[in-house]
Amino acid sequence: MSLHFTPAEFAARQARLSAALAERDLDGLLLFSQNSMYWLTGYDSFGFCFFQCLYVGADGRSALLTRSADLRQAQRTSTLTDIRVWRDGAAAEPARDLAAMLADLGLAGRRLGVEFGAHGLPYADGLKLAAALEGRVETRDATALIPSLRVEKSAAEIAYVRRAAALSDAADRAAVDLLAPGADEAAILAAQHAAVFGGGGEEPGNPFIIGSGGDALLCRSKAGRRRLDADDQITLEFAGAYRHYHAAIMRTHVVGRPRPLHAAYHEAAREALRACEAELRPGRTAGDVFAAHAGVLDAHGLGAHRLNACGYSLGATFAPSWMDAPMFYDANPFVVPAGGVFFLHMILMDSDSGTALCLGRTSLVTAAGAEPLNAPDLALVVR
Amino acid sequence: MSLHFTPAEFAARQARLSAALAERDLDGLLLFSQNSMYWLTGYDSFGFCFFQCLYVGADGRSALLTRSADLRQAQRTSTLTDIRVWRDGAAAEPARDLAAMLADLGLAGRRLGVEFGAHGLPYADGLKLAAALEGRVETRDATALIPSLRVEKSAAEIAYVRRAAALSDAADRAAVDLLAPGADEAAILAAQHAAVFGGGGEEPGNPFIIGSGGDALLCRSKAGRRRLDADDQITLEFAGAYRHYHAAIMRTHVVGRPRPLHAAYHEAAREALRACEAELRPGRTAGDVFAAHAGVLDAHGLGAHRLNACGYSLGATFAPSWMDAPMFYDANPFVVPAGGVFFLHMILMDSDSGTALCLGRTSLVTAAGAEPLNAPDLALVVR
Repeated sequence: MSLHFTPAEFAARQARLSAALAERDLDGLLLFSQNSMYWLTGYDSFGFCFFQCLYVGADGRSALLTRSADLRQAQRTSTLTDIRVWRDGAAAEPARDLAAMLADLGLAGRRLGVEFGAHGLPYADGLKLAAALEGRVETRDATALIPSLRVEKSAAEIAYVRRAAALSDAADRAAVDLLAPGADEAAILAAQHAAVFGGGGEEPGNPFIIGSGGDALLCRSKAGRRRLDADDQITLEFAGAYRHYHAAIMRTHVVGRPRPLHAAYHEAAREALRACEAELRPGRTAGDVFAAHAGVLDAHGLGAHRLNACGYSLGATFAPSWMDAPMFYDANPFVVPAGGVFFLHMILMDSDSGTALCLGRTSLVTAAGAEPLNAPDLALVVR
Repeated sequence: MSLHFTPAEFAARQARLSAALAERDLDGLLLFSQNSMYWLTGYDSFGFCFFQCLYVGADGRSALLTRSADLRQAQRTSTLTDIRVWRDGAAAEPARDLAAMLADLGLAGRRLGVEFGAHGLPYADGLKLAAALEGRVETRDATALIPSLRVEKSAAEIAYVRRAAALSDAADRAAVDLLAPGADEAAILAAQHAAVFGGGGEEPGNPFIIGSGGDALLCRSKAGRRRLDADDQITLEFAGAYRHYHAAIMRTHVVGRPRPLHAAYHEAAREALRACEAELRPGRTAGDVFAAHAGVLDAHGLGAHRLNACGYSLGATFAPSWMDAPMFYDANPFVVPAGGVFFLHMILMDSDSGTALCLGRTSLVTAAGAEPLNAPDLALVVR
């Protein structure tokens, strides 16, 4: 068994879910998000690349429908005991198999929430699901339900987040150690991953971002590596992942001669990050945090070079992204809770001068405010 | 720019797509699959974790709607020139922005194929899309269109597949070098990734699979590492990825004393793999290949321990999976083409005795039949 939390921890999560279902007058939930399944039962897989669904009742009963390749996976990684398999074939209709499973569980006519917005339920599958369930159960969108419960972390989860933060710091050091004119991006990426995997961590929810020269202005991953120039900039965004809990860091480093803009932008980004961290406390909203970011950068005259968002929640997430809900954007009314873990990234991408400067780290929110978990040294690295 | 193919190569792909659209009487296509976008334009991102859509016309015109974080990403990695941004916010309605973009492009009343089955279009987004496009354009599911074109690789693609195969062989050697009683799974995983990233490769479409002891019977990734016992088995499934093209290998290794079943199962798996490779030739069907797998393993009395599928196409794929269409399962009528690249995996998981034995590698299909690209030595490794 590879169960990473105690039975009591899982029972407490189920109790929170059952209460939330009762509040919404729902008899149960059909989960299509792997993030939700992992949080509720430990079920750890990328099986959501195919049709799979976990039914969970307000009464705590549950049953998983998945493919044969995931039968033992569910047995060995989760609290689940009722695991059913749909069979590959030209005539496979797993949505129909799901309807049959729900009937078998005696759920005819019940009202179920469904994770309609999960990456595990593409539109084509959703249409088949709707057709298969039509007239059998009543459904409504409940995509946001479990994410809203997952935002506040338990003590056991925070312990894993701290392990993840240590791995991200190790990956940060591994990259900085290799920084030099002529350094190979491929070697930096290899060293960062070796730090995370070698430390017992896992693949991140999305690929690490690495880009130098003009590509330092990108904030997504892409194929193709290059060597740094004598004078160059390199943007790195990466996360330690431990038991799938993430702690991310984002930094732009300089090799050779920094441009004057690097120092100026770094000052602004550091000031904005600290302003955001000051706002990141129980009772403030995600919009307040975004306003702190926009306020500082706009006051520096950098409004045209910043993004429309400055961070997001982090937790145990699977592909395609470690970005968890909610996100820090303009006027988002989400209220920051104690026990939340958030990544704040200040991203300055100046296409006019071709200058990048990014600075970001992960904080735990306590009653006293934001506690940065990684990247303690925010100085601009120049090698 | 990080464009990995020549303009002529992209033009040839667009020409194939335009012909396919004309055949289906479609004026254009709305792409939601990152795999499709990368193949057609080079656009390289994990931006599909949020709403984004690429319109492409039968006339070759195209326009991308995405978020601000992906504006420069599209500019620097693709052939695209018309890139539009929807803005984060509580009132954001990107599906409505897409409808406006299509109107702006003069597409009112046109008939468009849509990738309804893409992981980039969850059901909730698909419902909003359908509402926004209602009465404006005519839509129909075209999820399978570009995957059907992507199966046959060009010479330029095959060159990248061969690079990927070299990386997977390097990862294979890196793992075998560390095999020993007491070896740490974390070190093995770190070494495999270092081989791929250090060789200029990328993150795979899904996480590498590693499991030992009882977890050697799993064929998905999961969190949590252990050290090998004095007598143990370890199942590894991994891929080199180069320019996002994959070449996968799957093997179960033994440390210490092998059980008699390991040798017997390995013999059967190797015989089955060779039987599949003999069937993997132009004109045979995916069902024929599966039948070869099932025939050999069932004749060995191992029918209860095999899976319902024995491989799939490989190509340039993004998360959540490197498994590309089509898959080798019972009676699949897909006809194997020359220029196809396929992963064949023989998976034996015997829960009764707790014994695992997996063997798989990647082949290119030529007019002469299957050419294995990696794992030339199929012997059982015992250390």
